[in-house]
Amino acid sequence: MKTSTEYFTFRTREHREYINITDRVARVVAESGVQEGMVLVSAMHITAGVYVNDAEGGLLIDIDEWLQKLAPEGPEYCHHRTGESNGDAHLKNLLIGHEVIVPITAGAMDLGPWQQIYYAEFDGQRPKRVIVKVMGK
Amino acid sequence: MKTSTEYFTFRTREHREYINITDRVARVVAESGVQEGMVLVSAMHITAGVYVNDAEGGLLIDIDEWLQKLAPEGPEYCHHRTGESNGDAHLKNLLIGHEVIVPITAGAMDLGPWQQIYYAEFDGQRPKRVIVKVMGK
Amino acid sequence: MKTSTEYFTFRTREHREYINITDRVARVVAESGVQEGMVLVSAMHITAGVYVNDAEGGLLIDIDEWLQKLAPEGPEYCHHRTGESNGDAHLKNLLIGHEVIVPITAGAMDLGPWQQIYYAEFDGQRPKRVIVKVMGK
Repeated sequence: MKTSTEYFTFRTREHREYINITDRVARVVAESGVQEGMVLVSAMHITAGVYVNDAEGGLLIDIDEWLQKLAPEGPEYCHHRTGESNGDAHLKNLLIGHEVIVPITAGAMDLGPWQQIYYAEFDGQRPKRVIVKVMGK
Repeated sequence: MKTSTEYFTFRTREHREYINITDRVARVVAESGVQEGMVLVSAMHITAGVYVNDAEGGLLIDIDEWLQKLAPEGPEYCHHRTGESNGDAHLKNLLIGHEVIVPITAGAMDLGPWQQIYYAEFDGQRPKRVIVKVMGK
Repeated sequence: MKTSTEYFTFRTREHREYINITDRVARVVAESGVQEGMVLVSAMHITAGVYVNDAEGGLLIDIDEWLQKLAPEGPEYCHHRTGESNGDAHLKNLLIGHEVIVPITAGAMDLGPWQQIYYAEFDGQRPKRVIVKVMGK
């Protein structure tokens, strides 16, 4: 059984940002030598997410507007009594999810034709990490 | 360490449809010979989901109405500038999730008494795939 | 390859309740002897969830209010024709997710500084279970 671990660090320019990390994850999988198994891609923060969907610019705008609608920014969160102002980012994390697990077949990620892995930053402009853990044979 | 991989193909009659795939996944697990491990069940599309919940007809209606409410169909998505009309299906995928990972104990899926695995089609009437990857010993 | 399995049982006082289970999961990981791998933490019910986020009291209130807003209690669910009254709990389960998978590095969960694992009960006051399955080397 083989395992392999890498950490990516992101420091976004924008407060919210969506970054396609498929190629970077693919490289970790290739370097691991794992032929059959799974790769876990997981945000190490409670105000960021990881998801799989389409790499289409209009859709990224749709996703951002949708997250703003269902988990809006605003002053009304109890969490803000701590001095924080990012209550919405916690809820966006819960909505989109913080991790995905992708199958590995014949030495590469076994994704559908349009599936791309995204890092979704909801409270950026500071260094934040994603862990990539490969496990298989 | 053992792994085993199968692909299911669905071509739904309806645009949106919810299909119980528990028995089919159970068969893949049984045939894999894995006694202890995990099985990943993952839609290979960005407009379909996989989830675990109850096999109850009324609830399936509730789930569909709820998804329509939180991620409605409509003309307003930026994604539609590409000529697509399925922006809502992308958001439904993100809401419900595209994969589940189920524990395997003593050679079978270790699900609770009411837990059933569903394939959720949000943009059907054409062939779409789910990957089932078993990993364990 | 090593695997290890434990079950936690919860019987909450409240109908909805959020319980930090990070230390209990950490103990299972430590006792498993797994140095590199993953741990799956999964609710065995369709009216409860497992998620990763912050251990902050105000945020727990925010999460509960948000779930009530997006998946409200009420009489209107088709599922209630069966005699059940917990339609909202099924939708809350789908929104928050029923499982997380956490990487294990150097014999311990590889979580970010604020990441805590929560059991989210949406229809409690009766015994309900969570499975913890460790897999690795």
